Amino acid sequence: MAQPAAGSPRHVVGVDFGTLSGRAVVVDVADGAVRGEAVHEYRYGVITERLPDGTPLPPDWALQYPDDHREVLRIAVPAALRAAGVRPEDVLGIGVDATSCTVLPTRADGTPLCELPDLAGRPHAYPKLWKHHAAQRQAARINDVAAARGEAWLPRYGGRVSAEWQLAKALEVLEDDPEVFDRAERFIETADWLVWQLCGRETRNVSAAGYKGLRQDGQYPSAEFLRALHPRLDGLLPRIDGPLAPLGARAGGLTAEAARWTGLPVGTAVAVGAIDAHVTAAAARSVEPGRMLAVLGTSTCLIMNATAYHEVPGVCGVVDGGVTTGAWGYEAGQSGVGDIFAWYVRNALPAGYADEARRRGLSPYELLDDLAAAQPVGGHGLLALDWHSGNRSVLMDHELSGVLIGLTLATRPEDIWRALLEATAFGARTVVDAFTAAGVAVEELTVAGGLTGNRLLLRIYADVLARPLHVLDSAHPAALGAAIHAAVAAGAYPDVPAASAVMGAGRRETWRPDPARAAAYDELYAEYRALHDHFGRGGTDVLHRLRALRHRAHPR
Amino acid sequence: MAQPAAGSPRHVVGVDFGTLSGRAVVVDVADGAVRGEAVHEYRYGVITERLPDGTPLPPDWALQYPDDHREVLRIAVPAALRAAGVRPEDVLGIGVDATSCTVLPTRADGTPLCELPDLAGRPHAYPKLWKHHAAQRQAARINDVAAARGEAWLPRYGGRVSAEWQLAKALEVLEDDPEVFDRAERFIETADWLVWQLCGRETRNVSAAGYKGLRQDGQYPSAEFLRALHPRLDGLLPRIDGPLAPLGARAGGLTAEAARWTGLPVGTAVAVGAIDAHVTAAAARSVEPGRMLAVLGTSTCLIMNATAYHEVPGVCGVVDGGVTTGAWGYEAGQSGVGDIFAWYVRNALPAGYADEARRRGLSPYELLDDLAAAQPVGGHGLLALDWHSGNRSVLMDHELSGVLIGLTLATRPEDIWRALLEATAFGARTVVDAFTAAGVAVEELTVAGGLTGNRLLLRIYADVLARPLHVLDSAHPAALGAAIHAAVAAGAYPDVPAASAVMGAGRRETWRPDPARAAAYDELYAEYRALHDHFGRGGTDVLHRLRALRHRAHPR
Repeated sequence: MAQPAAGSPRHVVGVDFGTLSGRAVVVDVADGAVRGEAVHEYRYGVITERLPDGTPLPPDWALQYPDDHREVLRIAVPAALRAAGVRPEDVLGIGVDATSCTVLPTRADGTPLCELPDLAGRPHAYPKLWKHHAAQRQAARINDVAAARGEAWLPRYGGRVSAEWQLAKALEVLEDDPEVFDRAERFIETADWLVWQLCGRETRNVSAAGYKGLRQDGQYPSAEFLRALHPRLDGLLPRIDGPLAPLGARAGGLTAEAARWTGLPVGTAVAVGAIDAHVTAAAARSVEPGRMLAVLGTSTCLIMNATAYHEVPGVCGVVDGGVTTGAWGYEAGQSGVGDIFAWYVRNALPAGYADEARRRGLSPYELLDDLAAAQPVGGHGLLALDWHSGNRSVLMDHELSGVLIGLTLATRPEDIWRALLEATAFGARTVVDAFTAAGVAVEELTVAGGLTGNRLLLRIYADVLARPLHVLDSAHPAALGAAIHAAVAAGAYPDVPAASAVMGAGRRETWRPDPARAAAYDELYAEYRALHDHFGRGGTDVLHRLRALRHRAHPR
Repeated sequence: MAQPAAGSPRHVVGVDFGTLSGRAVVVDVADGAVRGEAVHEYRYGVITERLPDGTPLPPDWALQYPDDHREVLRIAVPAALRAAGVRPEDVLGIGVDATSCTVLPTRADGTPLCELPDLAGRPHAYPKLWKHHAAQRQAARINDVAAARGEAWLPRYGGRVSAEWQLAKALEVLEDDPEVFDRAERFIETADWLVWQLCGRETRNVSAAGYKGLRQDGQYPSAEFLRALHPRLDGLLPRIDGPLAPLGARAGGLTAEAARWTGLPVGTAVAVGAIDAHVTAAAARSVEPGRMLAVLGTSTCLIMNATAYHEVPGVCGVVDGGVTTGAWGYEAGQSGVGDIFAWYVRNALPAGYADEARRRGLSPYELLDDLAAAQPVGGHGLLALDWHSGNRSVLMDHELSGVLIGLTLATRPEDIWRALLEATAFGARTVVDAFTAAGVAVEELTVAGGLTGNRLLLRIYADVLARPLHVLDSAHPAALGAAIHAAVAAGAYPDVPAASAVMGAGRRETWRPDPARAAAYDELYAEYRALHDHFGRGGTDVLHRLRALRHRAHPR
């Protein structure tokens, strides 16, 4: 395995573009140590109610603002370098990752359409964030048509593609604002767009092209299939057909403009873009086959490499080289996790609890955990379905919604809180069980992400999943993963697994299940699965009908 | 019709014993005008967590404290007389009503067992409040055995008796604390116990004996049936077999002690006890056949007289003379209504909303109504089942629990609030539909009770029920109803309908349904009924299993 030459320290920069903020880290190539970091909160964050010019948005929309991303390059990267005390000339490369599928229409030169003055009031001209869920209608038709035609790629996506993905979002543009579609010379993932901004050269990473762009076996869905969805949808193909590049490859060198933004030298190696959760696998040393990584954050992404391809019903996607070159990368996901907890605290935490948290110097999350921790499994009598943001695995249906049953006049806030934590754990187990049932063994489970600070959550996950839960010892694993990709792109390591083995982070701790609690959760999990199938697999279609009523009541 | 003689004003006192407080009114016999009133909040209120001596209670318990009731006689009655400026010697009679089935074990002299020092720490020695729901297991067995034996009285209760009623509560005592059962020389309804306290003579009103004591066609359930439930349960019969008396009859005259408590003359006529919602029908002039009264409060009671008996599946009870002598009185009920709203505000109103309510000088209820009022029907995308306190009609199952579906990350507190208001309206419509389907026509619907101050609720009820909703113009209709009964007991009127026609209150307003909203609610109501049947009629038994897990986790 290649090692960086001894002598003057050599560093890489990793930049992680999240849902609400971007984070840059400066990492030592020799051992993966993070020398400095900086965060920049997006000005517009997630745009759900109105565009910056005041144009209102319908329900289920979630947009972003491209210059929020550039600001991270202009502010957080120089700040991280200063914090690290690393000279720009000691930086070998820069890598970026972003949420996905977060996709935007641009002109041929990469200018986002929403930055054109005459399109600034057009919602479809904006980047659609991963959790934009307004294209479920389109996703349903894509699934129906693909199934009817027996499209070969469909099983690679567990038999159902998501409304979050590129094709549903692009079809939504074509149907609802064809002028924006026509003026979009390119549709591109945010991570690839950022690489383009950095090195002046458009590339398409094979991972996003596979997982979110439906590219399999060297091809995107056929023009014929696309025309079956809409007579002009084949026009999408030339708009996405940029040069493909494997993960860890060098996309190009920093342009003069991007060098000014970042403070790094012109020509610094820029790694091919990547998806946040997927680069985290490298940071977690979880790229060996059978090692699953769950990134617990706003949503949860579950990533695992395997040596062979198996059909896993309900998986988000299986892509050759999707995590590291040479392996089949499996991705599954839960659309709402931390988002559901934040929703609860924002919308249902009583004033008395907020006061009590302040008095005790705790966050509301910590107070609720504290109050909920001691109760026995099943003690609250509640059961929830974690579908407040739809379901990305294994039902792949973003018009589902959350369910809470078992409420009584004695139900307390900490009871509902715990039921919500548990619901996401049941959701995670549903995914792991789907892998196992399909013959893809999950031998090890590591968790990373913002929610790993919640000890009650970790204990519940270990008990519900009934297996040891290793916790990654990294505060910024996605940014570290992007830095690992930068090290490979800069030639410091031959490939991502080699760089991961040296630069990846260790384990902070391991949670082991308690047998009695695990047994009690087996019972509750059986109830969860029954409720899951009733509301999600055709027992009743009421959640869809309620959403239809909601849409009818709020016409665009 | 008899009229009171002209001349010096003549008055009656009505005392309503509610769940949390008691209220006395002084009423003019000539026209029903309320001359004075006073409220007394119970010191112990609803005892759900621990007895006064600290003894902890299991889930689903709800007890009361007998001296809380005597305090109302000692404090509120004299205060109401003072407020009215009425001389005690101008009072013709006193009547009381209470919640039901609220039942207590006493010695032969009426002393509550919980007032005996050696039983003060024994939960079963206390009055069990109507919403004590820990006897569901006993109720289920009562229903099974009664159905198997084809007990003739069972159809009078819609085919299922409630865990709230006397037999389930008494069987719970016998099974769980046989010593208390043995030492109880009497089991008696709180209203009848209060009459006993007032006039020193035990009576049993035919209404509570019928609705809550299962007395039909002149008999309580047979000793043989009771022995089939428990070898010693036939011992209940002598403990409940006090002298029966029709509504509006004179039970006796005030004792010297009760005269000291109330400030009224010794010998003042005391009316037979009655159930709160049933006397309200008299106050609402709703005792004519086909006029339904819904008392919307902590729970909802729906009362209607009819000329004939019909089997109504899921009705709480049908009793000859149960509302007024000579008619079949139908009672149905919703176990949780205002209780659910209070639970929501206590457990889920965010701090920001509490602040906003204060800033605007509104109660949290008013703020939520205000925010929820403008939204179109179906706009929140939610649907709830109003079973947080179980279901008394038409499922008669207190181990059911609340359900809330359709939650998204965009769901706001006012959305959930509105969904809860709507759920109780759907629950009311379920009852009205059951009457109609059984051939008992509901020709007119009047509402009374504390919740009639909520204008959004009234609008929703009118739209959901798709019929005019008349609102009673009385702040204290139950107490007024008790006063009407007192007037009859004192001989001022020949019967309750005659007194009701003169002394009953008028209508404050009438809400008429909006056709468009009513049509939209038809759709949502169909979804409610489907969800209702799925969770309540055997589609799934998950709510029972969750409650069983909760009980297992919290053993006594």
